Amino acid sequence: MDFSSKLLENAVHEMSQLPGIGKRTALRLVLHLLKQPSGQTTRLSSALEGLRNSVKFCTQCHNISDVELCEICTNPKRDGSVVCVVEDIRDVMAIENTGQFNGLYHVLGGKISPMEGVGPQELTIASLVNKTKEGKIKELIFALSSTMEGDTTNFYIYKQLEGVEIKTSTIARGISIGDELEYADEVTLGRSILNRIPFENSLKTN
Amino acid sequence: MDFSSKLLENAVHEMSQLPGIGKRTALRLVLHLLKQPSGQTTRLSSALEGLRNSVKFCTQCHNISDVELCEICTNPKRDGSVVCVVEDIRDVMAIENTGQFNGLYHVLGGKISPMEGVGPQELTIASLVNKTKEGKIKELIFALSSTMEGDTTNFYIYKQLEGVEIKTSTIARGISIGDELEYADEVTLGRSILNRIPFENSLKTN
Repeated sequence: MDFSSKLLENAVHEMSQLPGIGKRTALRLVLHLLKQPSGQTTRLSSALEGLRNSVKFCTQCHNISDVELCEICTNPKRDGSVVCVVEDIRDVMAIENTGQFNGLYHVLGGKISPMEGVGPQELTIASLVNKTKEGKIKELIFALSSTMEGDTTNFYIYKQLEGVEIKTSTIARGISIGDELEYADEVTLGRSILNRIPFENSLKTN
Repeated sequence: MDFSSKLLENAVHEMSQLPGIGKRTALRLVLHLLKQPSGQTTRLSSALEGLRNSVKFCTQCHNISDVELCEICTNPKRDGSVVCVVEDIRDVMAIENTGQFNGLYHVLGGKISPMEGVGPQELTIASLVNKTKEGKIKELIFALSSTMEGDTTNFYIYKQLEGVEIKTSTIARGISIGDELEYADEVTLGRSILNRIPFENSLKTN
């Protein structure tokens, strides 16, 4: 693309560094900002810089938080003996939305992925293992996405826990509610048969 | 969405003000920035602010430009007697890419759209009409998109030019190169028959 303005080119270039935003979309977004009052651009850029420079993570669960200990970790009504291990804040928000979980979280900050240069030391695994050694946690629930990276991460953590007396579980994999069996992939369908549950249990949920 | 951090919520809110960016996408983009070195966020926000606060428009064609008169308007090799009327900088870039046009441009900055509160005075129509009265321009080519708004804008400008001796034309509408006739819409196909050109002419192009 040939731009008539260096300023425009620069803005489009920086915008297109974001994931899923190509040059054309970046140009559309930047031109939109130009048509809006300049206050909108100021608010956007200061919100982004404010977050990037002042972001804090809960020292206990490593979720993004404005204070030392996040609302979930400090909530006395929550059960500190069950900890759900998730990849990032989006998973925390998704699980919170279900209203089915009353324990605490541990946010890893990613998955082990040699391809992307993410090793165990880039994640908060050491902190998780230390927490489990304190003996307050009775159960860890692995809730990572079931991809190669997710499974590797689960297994790595599981290995690190050797010698620690703790129950580990993983969220159930199976056919989504409302999905047609014929369109389900074989692995999911196979696992859903292997890990079938007593019918009475399925009546209890919800 | 319930956020664990006001800073995060604010950044996501501002990001989701951009067209086509919903809350989920905004969250994904913001979390991506958090994982990158803070320099990337600084570069993005200062590029956006730099553009928004220092943007200049060419005084002659109203295209975005870093200088008083843009490169196209000051290029002595270009033909100042033919002016192509377009909506915004993206159209200039698209036409420049074809390499088929050697005249100048006039960027309206939008289309007349009562629904969106855009009237003729929001666009650079008065400036265009004044330019045509100077007598240097022999032909105006309307190259707006052929929507209700585009046609209205073309017609409004055409009416304003009454009494000015100038040729006006509009870019050809027809079947796209490579398109199957059976999938073309009726209006386009109809127009392409009405506005057929001598076969010899079609051999000349390109």
